[in-house]
Amino acid sequence: MKSTAVGEVLRIAEIFGPTIQGEGPLIGQPTVFVRTGGCDYRCMWCDSLHAVDPHYRHDWTAMSAEAVLERINMLSGDVPLLVSLSGGNPAIQDFAGLIRIGHTAGHRFALETQGSICRDWFAALNNLVLSPKPPSSGMQTDWAALEDCLRAAGDGPEIALKIVVFNEDDYAYARGVGARYPHISLYLQPGNHTPPPPEAEDAPIDVEGVMERMRWLVNKLAEDRWFTPRVLPQLHVLLWGNKRGV
Amino acid sequence: MKSTAVGEVLRIAEIFGPTIQGEGPLIGQPTVFVRTGGCDYRCMWCDSLHAVDPHYRHDWTAMSAEAVLERINMLSGDVPLLVSLSGGNPAIQDFAGLIRIGHTAGHRFALETQGSICRDWFAALNNLVLSPKPPSSGMQTDWAALEDCLRAAGDGPEIALKIVVFNEDDYAYARGVGARYPHISLYLQPGNHTPPPPEAEDAPIDVEGVMERMRWLVNKLAEDRWFTPRVLPQLHVLLWGNKRGV
Repeated sequence: MKSTAVGEVLRIAEIFGPTIQGEGPLIGQPTVFVRTGGCDYRCMWCDSLHAVDPHYRHDWTAMSAEAVLERINMLSGDVPLLVSLSGGNPAIQDFAGLIRIGHTAGHRFALETQGSICRDWFAALNNLVLSPKPPSSGMQTDWAALEDCLRAAGDGPEIALKIVVFNEDDYAYARGVGARYPHISLYLQPGNHTPPPPEAEDAPIDVEGVMERMRWLVNKLAEDRWFTPRVLPQLHVLLWGNKRGV
Repeated sequence: MKSTAVGEVLRIAEIFGPTIQGEGPLIGQPTVFVRTGGCDYRCMWCDSLHAVDPHYRHDWTAMSAEAVLERINMLSGDVPLLVSLSGGNPAIQDFAGLIRIGHTAGHRFALETQGSICRDWFAALNNLVLSPKPPSSGMQTDWAALEDCLRAAGDGPEIALKIVVFNEDDYAYARGVGARYPHISLYLQPGNHTPPPPEAEDAPIDVEGVMERMRWLVNKLAEDRWFTPRVLPQLHVLLWGNKRGV
């Protein structure tokens, strides 16, 4: 099944909004989320398993880029806004077509990916957030792939790095990323030990634990006199808990 | 009492950090705060009365720019970082000298002011946050003065506008600001109905009320399809309540 106009048919887990981007460099920005289905990673603390585990693939919808754009326009009332491509790992699919027709409609596109798969169309994005996964995820970082992502993006999008931090090992990993890429904006994000189970989205959430790790991170930076990264929580978790679609 | 080297002696309410900037365009950024004493405004919901009301002026310290820089360097361990000039209204004093010698030491300078008083040295800042006060403050905006501030800053600093929003009137005011300055980044911030009383900093704080106004604001933007401003809470209030010095 191919859409000749704008490329592959896309596997979409959910499209929702407008709400605000809850994390990273665009925190607070009104946006529509396009969450794609499927991922090449299995992070231990994944907070979007419903978009990752093939067990939930019957909940994903096959959509053309045109149909995705139509849904975005419906949600935004045809007013241009920021579209956030998230997952899963959106880079396992081809979003070149959606970005092209979306730009024509006036939208901007931000993508978040772990940086394990590089795509030519990264250069067409407005924002690229590379979020390599720290030791607590159980995943190994493929640094060569991350370099490829940076190269593919080139001077196209604004680029930022975002590292989730649960513990000292993750923090050491984040310091390494900061040392490796001193000229790229770096964001640290306290991890959430109570991510939503994919089938019970209103499960309770340990907000105080997240805030405690946030305070710990701020103290770490102060102690280590590491003043370059920004530290930001997942605002949507504080606002809406694990509720989905906001 | 004059410091011939770098200008006027400064009235300083407090210098603290490193912590993170809790609000506005630099949210999450490690910084040392220099809170100045004195203000030309008396906002109904002022959250820094200890730096505004002359009743507390015996707690303010007269310092030279050199002494302020020495204190910043002590707190930062001589590692360059972002210095946040706040108040009160820091624009009632002359910070040209501090910015000059601070830049030489590698620091960057951000200033937040309501935009009621314009200064030539705004052009030397790295970031300028203009925060004109909405109707709920009880203050009147002097638009000509705000224009003067923008003109004085010119292309020097990155400029942002930040509006505190408590209610529908404030929201309408914010929309007006957005319409007036479509090319300047705009931040909306839910108001805090339980600001710290100046003499009891550990007073309880209505976090849920702030979050409720935050959700209300996000919904307003979505309903009105107003997708340009960012909505951000005061992160330090969520992390530390009304505690001072963090």
